[in-house]
Amino acid sequence: MDRYMVISSDCHAGLPPEKYRDYLEPKYREAFDVALPIQIAATQEAARKFLVDEINEEWRSGREDLLSGAWDHDKRIEVLDNDGIAGEVIFPDGITEMNMPPFGAGLSLPTEEIVPELQWAGARAHNRWLAELCQMAPERRAGVAIIPILWDLDEAVKEARWAKVNGLKSVMLPVRWGKFAGYDHPKYDPFWAVCEELELVVNFHSGPAPMEDYGDGQGMVGIYISEVAWYLVRPLTFMLWGGVFERFPKLRVAITEGTAVWVPEYLKLLDFRYEDTPYSAKLGDYTSHMSLKPSEYFARNVLVGASCMPRREAEMRKEIGVENIAWGSDYPHPEGTWPETASAMRETFLDVPKEELTMMLGTNAAHWYGFETDKLAAVADRIGPKQADFE
Amino acid sequence: MDRYMVISSDCHAGLPPEKYRDYLEPKYREAFDVALPIQIAATQEAARKFLVDEINEEWRSGREDLLSGAWDHDKRIEVLDNDGIAGEVIFPDGITEMNMPPFGAGLSLPTEEIVPELQWAGARAHNRWLAELCQMAPERRAGVAIIPILWDLDEAVKEARWAKVNGLKSVMLPVRWGKFAGYDHPKYDPFWAVCEELELVVNFHSGPAPMEDYGDGQGMVGIYISEVAWYLVRPLTFMLWGGVFERFPKLRVAITEGTAVWVPEYLKLLDFRYEDTPYSAKLGDYTSHMSLKPSEYFARNVLVGASCMPRREAEMRKEIGVENIAWGSDYPHPEGTWPETASAMRETFLDVPKEELTMMLGTNAAHWYGFETDKLAAVADRIGPKQADFE
Repeated sequence: MDRYMVISSDCHAGLPPEKYRDYLEPKYREAFDVALPIQIAATQEAARKFLVDEINEEWRSGREDLLSGAWDHDKRIEVLDNDGIAGEVIFPDGITEMNMPPFGAGLSLPTEEIVPELQWAGARAHNRWLAELCQMAPERRAGVAIIPILWDLDEAVKEARWAKVNGLKSVMLPVRWGKFAGYDHPKYDPFWAVCEELELVVNFHSGPAPMEDYGDGQGMVGIYISEVAWYLVRPLTFMLWGGVFERFPKLRVAITEGTAVWVPEYLKLLDFRYEDTPYSAKLGDYTSHMSLKPSEYFARNVLVGASCMPRREAEMRKEIGVENIAWGSDYPHPEGTWPETASAMRETFLDVPKEELTMMLGTNAAHWYGFETDKLAAVADRIGPKQADFE
Repeated sequence: MDRYMVISSDCHAGLPPEKYRDYLEPKYREAFDVALPIQIAATQEAARKFLVDEINEEWRSGREDLLSGAWDHDKRIEVLDNDGIAGEVIFPDGITEMNMPPFGAGLSLPTEEIVPELQWAGARAHNRWLAELCQMAPERRAGVAIIPILWDLDEAVKEARWAKVNGLKSVMLPVRWGKFAGYDHPKYDPFWAVCEELELVVNFHSGPAPMEDYGDGQGMVGIYISEVAWYLVRPLTFMLWGGVFERFPKLRVAITEGTAVWVPEYLKLLDFRYEDTPYSAKLGDYTSHMSLKPSEYFARNVLVGASCMPRREAEMRKEIGVENIAWGSDYPHPEGTWPETASAMRETFLDVPKEELTMMLGTNAAHWYGFETDKLAAVADRIGPKQADFE
């Protein structure tokens, strides 16, 4: 094959909000009808703080039809084919601020100002629809189920099993946990156990940050985009020190759309803290439950969903770990590479050795999310970017 | 001179808790008498979570006399002389968990479970005592006044003026601000203005982190020491994006005891966010109030108090900024270099060119905190480490 098999580790899909109604359990539909206009207004208001209307409208102008791939099967196939992408990992929140699941069950999974039972209902509605979407092209789509784990651990375990049975490949947990226990806490062990058993990737996706800290001054956006990746990585910090990967050595975690540049310095810091230093000596024993260094767990248990990779990250690939990087396009979000993925990829990856690029563009994600590579290769052979273009 | 003039950018001093009574305004002494045993018990309890008694007792054993330099002038001179340190910047909290100012007015400056008026009273008591301590050797001591700015901005401005008049060189603000406005907010401008006018360094010192998030499991200590430096740097992130250094180009901020390794990647991230990228394009204008890049403000306005520098930070000095690093010993804390500063320094700085080492060990801090270098050089000429030892 003279083409790369590309899997985007970060794509998004979601229904127009009113269409989620049919996927909700009937008993929640009355609440849905009341909440829908409020949710639409609130989402647009929140988005206005961050998304400048003119810029987004200009970017979307003329692309409305192609953006409907956010929910339409045929259109999505066409769009991804044209972008050279054979397979994809699918998160919620399709077109930004337009396709969020009901009752605050989208990427941000807030812990306040929501009704837990309804957030669960919204998550399940999305998961049901997503399973259908993925079943239309199972060789090309790895769906990520939304799991509002904080409210009800038993339900979370049940939903993970439901996701597996229904063909989804991964489970997304809230990045922020409010007043609940952090992910170091052993109470989450039953959930890690089921994910390990069923080979479901535990996903965290960028987005949440403490907006309540950011005010509404000139600094707000800059602060948010400087901090948001740190909040994304925070669950991993808690899991590493909590010994989760010691107890669940085959658990796989993916950290998506938070750049990859943080990895080398992060691992140096954690390893430094793990080792015996004057700083740590006074603190007594806080590592005997961990037989490996943080960087060793990372290498074994963590994948970075590297959306919209800049050249610099490709240059840092060995420090980050070539096996731990999975490129992503972020379709249909405006910060993504679509519809100019081909040129963006070339800019980022020119001269990267074929074997390494093969991993970062596709086989890492294939291995992680359980794609059947023989089937996917047939697609890639038709639409994938030519290897010669990167030489 | 064949010796280096060393200024420790990070030392600590504090009275035994009961001795702060005399420095409190009389009207707070009754409350002090009630609070004292509670504070001592609470501080020791909190410290037990982090400081393993046996380790600290072993470290302190035989050093009790020398540790009394935490408050005793003569002893402090002797200790610092023997450690080769000519000048020092002095923060609160002398011997860890034993010398905290009254009413929660120490390094951590909590925003909850305290009475604001009392925290202010405790801060003032410490500042009064510290001014006396510094006056006993003004050429060698730059005192850092505690300013609980969140509760009362007018008082903060007044206390900064008091600090200047009484010979202190810097003001320390809370690292965390709870539900108050972040340091990007223009409401703090009057305070930045007075610090700029009076050439008072605005200091943030490591320690505070959201302990309430960390639970009490096996992961707790690892999580804390992995996150605490990020919380220390957070005020700077808010100030940079808020345009504080645009409005106050001569304001000087020091970030102390949070390592220095974070600087290069931090500045790359902020510069990347500052520049026009696909990610930022959708967000509209959030930089027009900043004429410089974050890294340019940093180079001009920020000093890193690099306590207990490891060799790796010395090797990264050019990426961090040789002019922006000020070494520190952290006396009398057990994680510091005292009483083995000479060997620790040699390990860190062997072969570093003299001109650069001169800056990092002394002249950067001298310039920043306003030491009179001719007077200090006379001390260093007697007790400073020999330059030949680093070749």
